[in-house]
Amino acid sequence: MELDQINHPSDIKNFSIKELEELAQQIRGFLIQKLSVTGGHLAPNLGVVELTLVLHYLFESPKDKLIFDVGHQSYVHKILTGRKDEFDTLRQYKGLCGYIKRSESEHDVWEAGHSSTSLSAAMGMALARDLKGENNHVIALIGDGAMTGGMALEALNHIGHEKKKMIVVLNDNEMSIAPNVGAIHNYLSKIRADKHYLKAKEEAQQLLKKIPKVGGTLAKSVERLKDSMKYLIVSGVLFEELGFNYIGPIDGHNIELLLQAFKQADKIDGPVLVHVVTVKGKGYSPAEIDSHKWHGVGPYKLESDQDEKQKKSKAVPSYSNVFSNSLIDLAKEDERIIGITAAMPSGTALNKFAHHFPERMIDVGIAEQHATTMCAGLADLGMKPVFAVYSTFLQRAYDQLVHDVCRQNLNVVFAIDRAGLVGDDGETHQGVYDLAYLNHIPNIVIMVPKDENELQHMVKTAIDYNEGPIAFRYPRGAGIGVDMDRQKKTLSIGSWEVVREGNQVAVLAVGPMVKLAQEAAEELAKENIQLEVINARFVKPLDHSMLQDLANEKKALITLEEASIKGGLGSAILEFYAEEEIYYMRIKQMGYPDYFVEHGSVKYQREEIGLTVEKIIENVKHLCNQKSEVNT
Amino acid sequence: MELDQINHPSDIKNFSIKELEELAQQIRGFLIQKLSVTGGHLAPNLGVVELTLVLHYLFESPKDKLIFDVGHQSYVHKILTGRKDEFDTLRQYKGLCGYIKRSESEHDVWEAGHSSTSLSAAMGMALARDLKGENNHVIALIGDGAMTGGMALEALNHIGHEKKKMIVVLNDNEMSIAPNVGAIHNYLSKIRADKHYLKAKEEAQQLLKKIPKVGGTLAKSVERLKDSMKYLIVSGVLFEELGFNYIGPIDGHNIELLLQAFKQADKIDGPVLVHVVTVKGKGYSPAEIDSHKWHGVGPYKLESDQDEKQKKSKAVPSYSNVFSNSLIDLAKEDERIIGITAAMPSGTALNKFAHHFPERMIDVGIAEQHATTMCAGLADLGMKPVFAVYSTFLQRAYDQLVHDVCRQNLNVVFAIDRAGLVGDDGETHQGVYDLAYLNHIPNIVIMVPKDENELQHMVKTAIDYNEGPIAFRYPRGAGIGVDMDRQKKTLSIGSWEVVREGNQVAVLAVGPMVKLAQEAAEELAKENIQLEVINARFVKPLDHSMLQDLANEKKALITLEEASIKGGLGSAILEFYAEEEIYYMRIKQMGYPDYFVEHGSVKYQREEIGLTVEKIIENVKHLCNQKSEVNT
Repeated sequence: MELDQINHPSDIKNFSIKELEELAQQIRGFLIQKLSVTGGHLAPNLGVVELTLVLHYLFESPKDKLIFDVGHQSYVHKILTGRKDEFDTLRQYKGLCGYIKRSESEHDVWEAGHSSTSLSAAMGMALARDLKGENNHVIALIGDGAMTGGMALEALNHIGHEKKKMIVVLNDNEMSIAPNVGAIHNYLSKIRADKHYLKAKEEAQQLLKKIPKVGGTLAKSVERLKDSMKYLIVSGVLFEELGFNYIGPIDGHNIELLLQAFKQADKIDGPVLVHVVTVKGKGYSPAEIDSHKWHGVGPYKLESDQDEKQKKSKAVPSYSNVFSNSLIDLAKEDERIIGITAAMPSGTALNKFAHHFPERMIDVGIAEQHATTMCAGLADLGMKPVFAVYSTFLQRAYDQLVHDVCRQNLNVVFAIDRAGLVGDDGETHQGVYDLAYLNHIPNIVIMVPKDENELQHMVKTAIDYNEGPIAFRYPRGAGIGVDMDRQKKTLSIGSWEVVREGNQVAVLAVGPMVKLAQEAAEELAKENIQLEVINARFVKPLDHSMLQDLANEKKALITLEEASIKGGLGSAILEFYAEEEIYYMRIKQMGYPDYFVEHGSVKYQREEIGLTVEKIIENVKHLCNQKSEVNT
Repeated sequence: MELDQINHPSDIKNFSIKELEELAQQIRGFLIQKLSVTGGHLAPNLGVVELTLVLHYLFESPKDKLIFDVGHQSYVHKILTGRKDEFDTLRQYKGLCGYIKRSESEHDVWEAGHSSTSLSAAMGMALARDLKGENNHVIALIGDGAMTGGMALEALNHIGHEKKKMIVVLNDNEMSIAPNVGAIHNYLSKIRADKHYLKAKEEAQQLLKKIPKVGGTLAKSVERLKDSMKYLIVSGVLFEELGFNYIGPIDGHNIELLLQAFKQADKIDGPVLVHVVTVKGKGYSPAEIDSHKWHGVGPYKLESDQDEKQKKSKAVPSYSNVFSNSLIDLAKEDERIIGITAAMPSGTALNKFAHHFPERMIDVGIAEQHATTMCAGLADLGMKPVFAVYSTFLQRAYDQLVHDVCRQNLNVVFAIDRAGLVGDDGETHQGVYDLAYLNHIPNIVIMVPKDENELQHMVKTAIDYNEGPIAFRYPRGAGIGVDMDRQKKTLSIGSWEVVREGNQVAVLAVGPMVKLAQEAAEELAKENIQLEVINARFVKPLDHSMLQDLANEKKALITLEEASIKGGLGSAILEFYAEEEIYYMRIKQMGYPDYFVEHGSVKYQREEIGLTVEKIIENVKHLCNQKSEVNT
């Protein structure tokens, strides 16, 4: 038996337990070796090797539906379904996707990059199955972190009520990307920690049998007592009360126990929750020791605990770090400041803030809705909550932004990280809709820093602003390497900045696009075309006076943003001129197009959608030529 | 003691239980009488009379924070905090708001029209209190329906973990607006239904004492058994497991018991959940008998079970009914069709669909996120899910729209009800952001019917469309009274309709605005101005060829929509012309402004924001004059 011979789940159907165990070790070796070159989500996948093997061994994909809650733990599934030869291109442009991808395989039935979606998807698939009179299995695999997301809890509540046959695999690794928080987490820990649990249950059953039969008025009481004893016999009371059959906890690296548990689950005609305990990074000691660090990594040296990518980018501080450091500085003087994260303390760098102000930092777990409205509650009583959140995950809290924060006009600060193109993570994580989903909400101020130095000023501006909600959005990864001012400044709300004077055409750019525009301007200057470059750092409110000047000068405009063209900066500018009845402006919008851009490096993604120096130059020249046509 | 003498919570502080009981009856009489004239949320408020009285009696508002989950149950609170004389203007333009309103009173600390926000707000306020070293109480009042919303469950999980002192009052009336669904609901029913519960607990305690002390190996087992007996002694295991102290269930109409429970809760230094059972409509027999009908009503005749408003509007079918009837017709032929609601079977009229196809209708409870992603799961396996949902509540599922439905390009139909201005419900319920939050999402088709007849065609169009997600949005209330075609038609995707030819200026309108534009055109015709009126029924994709024609004809355009100007139809048209490099178009955008429009009749709201025939005429004339200026 060799991994090379496995091209389809059917290839493992006749394996013995021993063979499955050997295969698990080969898969581990494969992942550790392959990911050392490409990088990827190592620790989560090492944790689910046996679990994925057992599911493919017992069930019949694609007839049976395997739903991964977050696709980044699907590598073993990809290996077993004929894609192991593509791992050299993992997460690369036009290469193997790092998540579930329906276009890649018939075995990929549900795509997700955001957490907590699998139970709802499974419920839909179970309903469809029953309505169509089919009899396939539906199996959702969800982590303990994702289980506490609001939509997963909504689904749990519904599934427990409807009683459709399905299996929910709770992959409990005691942490998602960050250490878990929340009462459900505490509850799971309690089950896990009680090593005598199973033994206790057995003993209780024995005791129960010994209670003598009695008559008279006591009889009913004894009956009720016995009835309630189920709490002793069945663990997972919480899930039982929610209408599930609970099986567990099961050692997720013991194939024999896993097989037993899922065979038992298979027999139950209703929703079953199988509680599987796994170790993230299992089998690779650096990753077992520090599974957070090894959650998603760049290329690494085998058996070294150094992540090469991390080393390289140390020279220039990341936007996240600049944000966090700035907040720390300001929080020393301003006791109102509270840092909030939804399970991303390290990704947002708020862990540094927490180090300085442990009591003023709150991690709510994967719960962006709750986080946002909790911020509203904090602000209502005079605090200054700063919710640091990835652009793509803040989508979860759109209603809370509208209804709770902006409608009540409360002083909540949104530090929107990973805004713009995100590269390898691909279409589920693109942070390109924030400007569009924020811009039409009344009362909010929206800023975009052109570099890490301006970011620190925006952090201060946001803290100093007490007229309502305010947001700033900044990219993933390292800044552009500019010098940092020693003093933080407060920017005037709605003020743009001319970074380069020009004549016929002006580029209105935000974020890292300002630098791109400057590069284009330098190239164009060689051909004697003076391109004006404006840092349109306030997307809301716009700089009305500068827009008026541009209209007076009859300049042609290019709007340039790493954000959806629809509803973005450019559209806000079009709306402004329409409102002002200025009808002659020539405006070219450059930004994220009206389709989902797939994974690959940011460089390739920018090329694909035309956010390049070359394309800017082309557009400027085109507008200049138009201008001369208009003039003649 | 007279209700007239109550102007502040302090006025009831010295009342005896008997006096509180008398006051409760007076308040009931007041509400029944006042609301018979103004209409309003009668049943929910009759259910919380004693509860609200007790909370104001025991706690010190506004120092102590009373947070109502949905503000429509705050009438008693408004009476006790000096606003009873304003009830004649309830829900009227510039009158008393039907919800909590911070600008109305210092006792109103949290505004909410959408459900499930109170626990997050309370958590924020409890954190703020502790950080500031203050010692006020934080009390959140949440219904059993709202409790199952995802964000409430996220908050529950966080509160149970953080252990801050606060009181959560679970107002369990066995139904929210619709009968409740979900496992948590089943769980609460079980607690309520077991009348022997308290007695059983006492007996179990007695039994426990009788278990003899033993030594040896059995000792530990007995200890564990005793430990687990807490499940017998404490009800509300689910909440206890989530880290709450549970008190209940308490009869919510018994002032003495309520006082006892809250005094006990007050002593606990951590989160307490007080489970209060109330009867919606308590004290007014028609409302007790049919509390759904009496949830929110128009004016009514006292002691009659007729809601006058409902009677009046029977002549013309509501949009909701036309939608549901159309879906029923289509579902007879198409077995893929499934109706989905999030706790609004009656509001969306899907209850009629359920009557015909009980097995093809799913009510998930207040869980818009789960509903949306479940639809994606259904569509993934070939079904045709139709999620009927209010525009303002679909905001909750924005991320699921982006990430689960549109990104995977699945055939989910969104029937968006209550789109546009909603009148009395006011700013929390305005359905005006849907076009803006949908338009920038790739793959989705967005339709808006000009009347109820076109709505039936759009239902068919949506069902016939199998290229991805599709939505149609329609207003609250009755249609405009047009004849209904006997055959449903399939509209060509992206095709607009010229409803009236004209010359210099064209209005591009959607929904009920088309009729407004036609009225304006008729008026203008009298002055020999021929206004073109176009039904821009596809907001995405736009009718490119018609837009090109309008550009060729150099017509000035007015875009007219009961939706946010920012990001709406008009903006999409501006983006289109920018993309096509057509830079000379004169476009005037009319729609919902960049602030939150308060409650009042739709008529007043339209006047406030200039969505009137007069304003259209004014804008047309203005554009005509401009045109002659340009031409001279």
